[in-house]
Amino acid sequence: MSTRATERQLIEIIRRAGARGTGVRIGIGDDCAVLEPGAGRLVLATTDLLIEDVHFRRRYATAADVGWKSLAVNLSDIASMGGRPRWALVALACPEGVTVEEAEAFWAGLLELARAHDVAVVGGDTSTSPRGWIVNVTLLGEAVPASVLRSTAKPGDVVAVTGTLGRAAAGLAVLERGAAPPGVAPAALDEVKAAHLRPRPRVREGQWLAAAGGVTAMIDLSDGLATDLGHIAEESRVGTRIELARLPLGAAVRAVAAAVGGDPLAWATGGGEDYELLVTCHPDAFARLVDGLAAATGTLLTGIGEVAASAAGVRYTDAAGREVAVAPGFEHFVTGRP
Amino acid sequence: MSTRATERQLIEIIRRAGARGTGVRIGIGDDCAVLEPGAGRLVLATTDLLIEDVHFRRRYATAADVGWKSLAVNLSDIASMGGRPRWALVALACPEGVTVEEAEAFWAGLLELARAHDVAVVGGDTSTSPRGWIVNVTLLGEAVPASVLRSTAKPGDVVAVTGTLGRAAAGLAVLERGAAPPGVAPAALDEVKAAHLRPRPRVREGQWLAAAGGVTAMIDLSDGLATDLGHIAEESRVGTRIELARLPLGAAVRAVAAAVGGDPLAWATGGGEDYELLVTCHPDAFARLVDGLAAATGTLLTGIGEVAASAAGVRYTDAAGREVAVAPGFEHFVTGRP
Repeated sequence: MSTRATERQLIEIIRRAGARGTGVRIGIGDDCAVLEPGAGRLVLATTDLLIEDVHFRRRYATAADVGWKSLAVNLSDIASMGGRPRWALVALACPEGVTVEEAEAFWAGLLELARAHDVAVVGGDTSTSPRGWIVNVTLLGEAVPASVLRSTAKPGDVVAVTGTLGRAAAGLAVLERGAAPPGVAPAALDEVKAAHLRPRPRVREGQWLAAAGGVTAMIDLSDGLATDLGHIAEESRVGTRIELARLPLGAAVRAVAAAVGGDPLAWATGGGEDYELLVTCHPDAFARLVDGLAAATGTLLTGIGEVAASAAGVRYTDAAGREVAVAPGFEHFVTGRP
Repeated sequence: MSTRATERQLIEIIRRAGARGTGVRIGIGDDCAVLEPGAGRLVLATTDLLIEDVHFRRRYATAADVGWKSLAVNLSDIASMGGRPRWALVALACPEGVTVEEAEAFWAGLLELARAHDVAVVGGDTSTSPRGWIVNVTLLGEAVPASVLRSTAKPGDVVAVTGTLGRAAAGLAVLERGAAPPGVAPAALDEVKAAHLRPRPRVREGQWLAAAGGVTAMIDLSDGLATDLGHIAEESRVGTRIELARLPLGAAVRAVAAAVGGDPLAWATGGGEDYELLVTCHPDAFARLVDGLAAATGTLLTGIGEVAASAAGVRYTDAAGREVAVAPGFEHFVTGRP
């Protein structure tokens, strides 16, 4: 049985989601949240607007998936600064006819991830939408201890990524297709679908990398390696060379690519939404960072190329150093960040 | 000549809108803004999602009006806590075919108001919208010196409002009507239309009132007197009696009401979007607050009733103290705040 939610019910659901806790003087329920950052701490702030059929599809993303992902993409931004996420403000617009169950599922998905990262929901807004779900999450955090920016990569630095690439694009290919591709193990399908629907932002990894010393620039992979590494290159006024054979591709991505006729390298370089961290670091710090990150978080850090002196953006090479072209990724969702 | 904006142009327009200034270590252009609140200051945070044809109509609201209003409604929330607004994060989704001129007008309208209140735009997001304009603004501020809440009104307190009531509802009636109503002076029409399209949040008034002492509760009038005073009554666990004859109605509101057959009292109590401040205060502080606010800001503070011990919500009386009913306001826009 599903029940159409009234405005009053939607507001009550948000109120129940509201949390008090350390650093929250006033949470949901007044005109503003009143927050208390730690003494001497800088405040990080990021905002993301997610719109149905631009950023997600309700055909295969449940309300709980949408809630999870709307917070995850912001957590990833805090992660890329090495920050500690703390407070979220969530605005949700649903079409008429949304049920109490759907609204509660949205909040359950969001709060599951919020609790995992000790984030308190301190503000909210709700309204009807003339078409589709619309979610805006603003996430505030604290800088611990100093933020690592996009603009500080140096020639000679190693370029490295956490985890593996292309999983979210593989998952999207499977989900958009509808029917499961033949010959792929169910566990591999689940892995890539979850990577698209419920990304796990690298918050602990970002904090560890920022504090470890030797990391010169960091960004999260939201728009894809080519675009996001392009941001580092442009803002640091450097070039980068990526050796394609070194890109970390998981077995599930290769299996899905083979089954659907996709190009795993294009997914890895252009697919976007992997929400892994892309870092540059001093060459003599690289081995220490790989070992330390694995020990502290269990997450792999893989060197994929180097920063060059020229301002030539992102170039790909084969193992012999010859420049090669990569097909652009599937531009599935039209979006941009300034 | 109008030019269709590319994604790249929209991002460039946001980047130009970004401001550095006091308290901004990193503004637009990295994954997060990095902000530096004053030592020992509390941080205020509020968010509002505005959706075309739910919260505004492009038929009569220009892109500049939408930009102005999307910040104004958040400034009003900071005002109602007596806070100092500082940093804004703005997410904008426009339908395909938006022109460079429209996008620039949106930002010009928003930045005009931001500059007037010394607010820096430090974060942003942009995407396409499948239908209509969608704007989310999150505004951060600082609590100076202590916030005045909704939940702290006391029996015996005076209920008072800044400025006059019903102008935004009168403006909406004129704008929705299309043709100018007969017999109303152009200046009066301009006044009420501007009240709807470009509300002027009472930021200085809120700061003064919070610092003056004697104010026991404060809220901004976004949803209308009945609803917003209802919030104070509910959260302070008190009742309120409002004397209808004391409600401050401007001449323009009366003239428009007469011309279109509207009820100015219904506009004043239920119309919403006046963005005046509603306060409760100690009876012996009232005269001092009226004089002081007028001297400091030029803004009128008018006593309209009192807080009662019973938890009976909001009651209206005539001059003899007899309870009277008021027609509900025009529920033009479906929205809610938790």
